[in-house]
Amino acid sequence: MSIERVAIIGLGLLGGSIGLAIAKHAPGIVTTGYDADPATREAARKRKLAGTVFDNAAEAVGNADLVILCVPVGAMGFAAEAIRDALPEGAIISDVGSSKQSVSDTLRAALPDQCVIPAHPVAGTEQSGPEAGFPELFEHRWCILTPPAGAPEDAVEKLGAFWTNLGSNVELMDAEHHDLVLAVTSHIPHLIAYTIVGTASDLEDVTRSEVIKYSAGGFRDFTRIAASDPTMWRDVFLSNKDAVLEMLGRFTEDLTALQRAIRRGDGDALHDLFTKTRAIRRSIIEQGQDDARPDFGRSDH
Amino acid sequence: MSIERVAIIGLGLLGGSIGLAIAKHAPGIVTTGYDADPATREAARKRKLAGTVFDNAAEAVGNADLVILCVPVGAMGFAAEAIRDALPEGAIISDVGSSKQSVSDTLRAALPDQCVIPAHPVAGTEQSGPEAGFPELFEHRWCILTPPAGAPEDAVEKLGAFWTNLGSNVELMDAEHHDLVLAVTSHIPHLIAYTIVGTASDLEDVTRSEVIKYSAGGFRDFTRIAASDPTMWRDVFLSNKDAVLEMLGRFTEDLTALQRAIRRGDGDALHDLFTKTRAIRRSIIEQGQDDARPDFGRSDH
Ligand SMILES: NC(=O)c1ccc[n+]([C@@H]2O[C@H](COP(=O)([O-])OP(=O)(O)OC[C@H]3O[C@@H](n4cnc5c(N)ncnc54)[C@H](OP(=O)(O)O)[C@@H]3O)[C@@H](O)[C@H]2O)c1
Ligand SMILES: NC(=O)c1ccc[n+]([C@@H]2O[C@H](COP(=O)([O-])OP(=O)(O)OC[C@H]3O[C@@H](n4cnc5c(N)ncnc54)[C@H](OP(=O)(O)O)[C@@H]3O)[C@@H](O)[C@H]2O)c1
Repeated sequence: MSIERVAIIGLGLLGGSIGLAIAKHAPGIVTTGYDADPATREAARKRKLAGTVFDNAAEAVGNADLVILCVPVGAMGFAAEAIRDALPEGAIISDVGSSKQSVSDTLRAALPDQCVIPAHPVAGTEQSGPEAGFPELFEHRWCILTPPAGAPEDAVEKLGAFWTNLGSNVELMDAEHHDLVLAVTSHIPHLIAYTIVGTASDLEDVTRSEVIKYSAGGFRDFTRIAASDPTMWRDVFLSNKDAVLEMLGRFTEDLTALQRAIRRGDGDALHDLFTKTRAIRRSIIEQGQDDARPDFGRSDH
Repeated sequence: MSIERVAIIGLGLLGGSIGLAIAKHAPGIVTTGYDADPATREAARKRKLAGTVFDNAAEAVGNADLVILCVPVGAMGFAAEAIRDALPEGAIISDVGSSKQSVSDTLRAALPDQCVIPAHPVAGTEQSGPEAGFPELFEHRWCILTPPAGAPEDAVEKLGAFWTNLGSNVELMDAEHHDLVLAVTSHIPHLIAYTIVGTASDLEDVTRSEVIKYSAGGFRDFTRIAASDPTMWRDVFLSNKDAVLEMLGRFTEDLTALQRAIRRGDGDALHDLFTKTRAIRRSIIEQGQDDARPDFGRSDH
């Protein structure tokens, strides 16, 4: 039996997109929703992010066979406690948090009697809140499930089928390995973007207005990433500390080597690295994770 | 008298876009062009990047009142020597190089009797070559002129009017200050993007195929920047060494502070920085240097 009633806790970018994606791709599924913020619940009702938006979490999950927690990673524990006593027997509890080991530990500790299967759809934008979601967010993107040892296979399959239904490619991974991979492909890039935008806005010899005027040279792409939600990202770095620090160490080593090449005027070393990095770009485009067109194919949806 | 005959040396992204922009915005101006690469000249003829594409540089400039060198920064000296003996008296010599102090020195040394006014249109993409240019590249973008002390005012005005005509906003700046500003808004972002993409492709515990699959989390934006032309960027870092190393030092300091905040679990420090960086993004959008729409307004042209 596949999933028929989904409760979405947290109706921001991710939660809202899940609701809209279900309406588009699996209209047979009944959706309920809840958000801690009354204004978000109101906006969610207007945009029909879920079939019914309830004013408390317990009511929203009372009838669900899948509950998805779509709140910042640091709020997962609170969200789990709020629904604990209202969960129907046999319901699958999942989430969309950007780090997985700490979330998995938190959810299993808070809900020891429940079937917990953490997940992470690798899809997002720098926007957040109830107005930000759209039904195509997950199409052609990977969704990583990190079932803990001993998770019931049929539940894992059901959850995988649910995400496939929304247009995602599903992959299983160990939570620890997930956290390392995502540290590289997501967390460190965000950290670096935040840092450089911070550096640029604090200089004495270059004014903020100059930084803004001449941002078209490359900087503006970093500002887009560095405009992402502060709470979400604070929680990601706190919850994935070890992998982030590990990867940051490697990045710093490589940056130091490049710095030395510039200082010494070693043009060949620079040219070699700059040539190598093009290959990765080509593969990303070939595998449909980005688009070479000037609008990155965003006009497709 | 305004500019009537423009010679473009180097018919890649920048040179080609200038030719196409003149045809769109100032069709009265006669354009000639030259590129060192025969295949590029052939492609330039097909795309009509200049009215006439010549097989040698001297012929291309023989009749010009403005010559714009659109070659990599490290090739400016060779390009200047190739045209020296063919330049008409009174012609203005300019360029589009991404660093300005070293280019200014090189051009003035190679062409001591000529009126040299270096320039840098702050507009680009990660593409290069004769197929990459488009006529709208300079619209609503800044073009920075860095006239050396004593440059004739009327020539500076003519060159400014030329760029205004192509849709740019024109600004005058000291070459040294230009190099510092662009180190922040362009050179360091590129250096960092190249580094992180390099780091990610050399890990043992995360495979290249994982990096590619899960790039949608933020990494793919860096790969786009790191797909930029290796020769162009090698030359930029070699020619703007001092400013790049200076700004890299500040970036590294800030990154170290953030690293410490993560290690200590100092969520407030992280949240504060992540909040501050949003303001810069907002200003960039307000001032029309980027677009909040999902396609960044790229569908407009
Ligand atoms: N954004 C991305 O690109 C992306 C991609 C993949 C995964 N994720 C993950 O998805 C999750 C949600 O991110 P998002 O981008 O959707 O953030 P968002 O747009 O800010 O939405 C989160 C929503 O959860 C609400 N909330 C917070 N605590 C709650 C609680 N205890 N109970 C119920 N609702 C609560 C928030 O309300 P308040 O505003 O009142 O706090 C907010 O409306 C995070 O874990 C993030 O790591 C994000
Ligand atoms: N790309 C950007 O985003 C951007 C933005 C602003 C400014 N700029 C500056 O614009 C300049 C050109 O960059 P681009 O992006 O247009 O590069 P591009 O697309 O690679 O074009 C440069 C062209 O110049 C040719 N060339 C090299 N040496 C030459 C010589 N001595 N005489 C004649 N032609 C020669 C190259 O031919 P080969 O291929 O045979 O070498 C190539 O066709 C650089 O100085 C760069 O710093 C670039």
